[in-house]
Amino acid sequence: MTSRMRAEIGEQPDALRRTIDALRPAAAGIAALARETRQVLFIARGSSDNAAVYGRYLVESRAGRLGTPAAPSIATAYRRRLDLSGVLAVAISQSGKTEEIVETLDWAASCGARTVAVTNGEGSPLAEAAEVALITRAGDELAVPATKTYTTQLAALSVLGLGLGAQVDADDLNRVPDEVARLIEATEASPALGEIVEALARVPGAVVSGRGLAFGTALELALKIKEACYLHAMGLSYADLLHGPIAVVDAQTPALLIAADSGPTLPGTIALAERVRSAGAQAYGVGGGGGLAGACSAALPGPVLPEWTAPLGLIVPGQILVENLARRLGIDPDVPRGLNKVTQTD
Amino acid sequence: MTSRMRAEIGEQPDALRRTIDALRPAAAGIAALARETRQVLFIARGSSDNAAVYGRYLVESRAGRLGTPAAPSIATAYRRRLDLSGVLAVAISQSGKTEEIVETLDWAASCGARTVAVTNGEGSPLAEAAEVALITRAGDELAVPATKTYTTQLAALSVLGLGLGAQVDADDLNRVPDEVARLIEATEASPALGEIVEALARVPGAVVSGRGLAFGTALELALKIKEACYLHAMGLSYADLLHGPIAVVDAQTPALLIAADSGPTLPGTIALAERVRSAGAQAYGVGGGGGLAGACSAALPGPVLPEWTAPLGLIVPGQILVENLARRLGIDPDVPRGLNKVTQTD
Repeated sequence: MTSRMRAEIGEQPDALRRTIDALRPAAAGIAALARETRQVLFIARGSSDNAAVYGRYLVESRAGRLGTPAAPSIATAYRRRLDLSGVLAVAISQSGKTEEIVETLDWAASCGARTVAVTNGEGSPLAEAAEVALITRAGDELAVPATKTYTTQLAALSVLGLGLGAQVDADDLNRVPDEVARLIEATEASPALGEIVEALARVPGAVVSGRGLAFGTALELALKIKEACYLHAMGLSYADLLHGPIAVVDAQTPALLIAADSGPTLPGTIALAERVRSAGAQAYGVGGGGGLAGACSAALPGPVLPEWTAPLGLIVPGQILVENLARRLGIDPDVPRGLNKVTQTD
Repeated sequence: MTSRMRAEIGEQPDALRRTIDALRPAAAGIAALARETRQVLFIARGSSDNAAVYGRYLVESRAGRLGTPAAPSIATAYRRRLDLSGVLAVAISQSGKTEEIVETLDWAASCGARTVAVTNGEGSPLAEAAEVALITRAGDELAVPATKTYTTQLAALSVLGLGLGAQVDADDLNRVPDEVARLIEATEASPALGEIVEALARVPGAVVSGRGLAFGTALELALKIKEACYLHAMGLSYADLLHGPIAVVDAQTPALLIAADSGPTLPGTIALAERVRSAGAQAYGVGGGGGLAGACSAALPGPVLPEWTAPLGLIVPGQILVENLARRLGIDPDVPRGLNKVTQTD
């Protein structure tokens, strides 16, 4: 049985290539817009908010600009104006139709912010509302769990980072599509895939953790496990996991730990794997090279990419894990209960 | 059997009174410091980070200033400098000894921010590092789950809001201690308490949700349930719950929904209770007046306070719920596994 979700996972190399090729020239427009701003405010919900977490760490760690999340209810429920002069507001929505996000971007503009949209919806209300629209080229996504629209959002945010002057080699982006294609094959060939699927099929929940540039990937994998497998998956940063929730890790609650195979957060993630296992729980790795794999009970391969582009591939083994786990649990991954493709919140 | 945690819950009226009396005069110092700033950046982890969520909504909804969370790993792992001129950095730590938080506040100062500490640790490294220290008067807290240090942090943050010019009646604060005392009695007398404890004792996890000023309370209750009861409790905003995780709500996964009994986010919380129940799950309310109680399967009383001070009481029924649930599950709430009172992260 092949799901629509699995097909869309496989479409990611092409979707990423199209998006990177189309958007790299937009970095100049972002740079022009950003010249009058000093910081970035991300407006998003759900998977798009997890993409925003990548955006904030990229902007802060590589471009030296403050990048923080907005609280949409200030705009939509409290209807309070803030002084947002000097702020670059970046709204992210797959469909570009979520009214809360469009309304919050309009509010930001009325408060003095400059505006960017990241959306797969060309001509959507969100694209029309922004001064610069970074239109991802994911194509139609029919499965409810976002896959290629998420990774192409990350590609668009990496272009945002370039526009903001990130101190990176822009050509690293060109290696991503082929690396994602390789990673899909490597994940499906990995004996760890079946092992981790069987382990997760037998537990009520799991903790998913990652840090810095990989934190958004951990949140996104936790969200995917919740929405498509109905497990109680808690996405937590490394530090927050130590502040209380480490108590939930036990024989019935394994940890999934995610890291790029380089970067300053890798050693802490390896130490966390050791701590989880010493607490009597299983630790499963995603990425993190041989160091993390060696510290875990089993590990899925990660992308061989520099830390700043690694998140564009790092979620892919997780997507494959979720698709396999959903089917193992008798769930159709394409249409989880309770969800629609476009979520309307107010 | 009486736990230390239960005793400390009962000490909150006095702790709040001492803290409010001691800190209200500090609003003028905050105002002077804030004059050169335009926005607030909160630095915190764990329960203190949940207090910071209250702080951000208070600052944005009542004082009209942007208030956002910092990413400590930018300071401590990536060691990247940002331009933080015009930023008021507010670091929150119960002990004032968590090195990551002290280091991040020092980093913020070196990046140009003005600095405030909120801590129960008079003379602690964090108190010494800040230009203005708001010292809470919780007294010694011995149980690992934070109770009175959390609510007194909220009191300190309400004073921060006053210093930033929040458009509220400052005397509302004086009503809080007596109202918390009344609420402790009312919660323990409520037949809903035993009913909800029994329901949660039979499930592997729960969703905890709230919005706007009550969102931090939902995150804090979820953390308490995780750390003291080992349940898989997921703290989610109203909007994020609709973006995917609504799929996990079912007969085995009830929702705890939290709201003040007034304010613009109450109607959405009532609607969420109805949606959860129509999905075949139980919804349990905390606060939200008769409207939320009527929409839920059972509900604990909340404080009768204006929305801006309601969070200082709204967590209290949740603390009592957690203390009862832990004992019902055979856990000593004072010393959950895997945790120390001062968490060191790097």
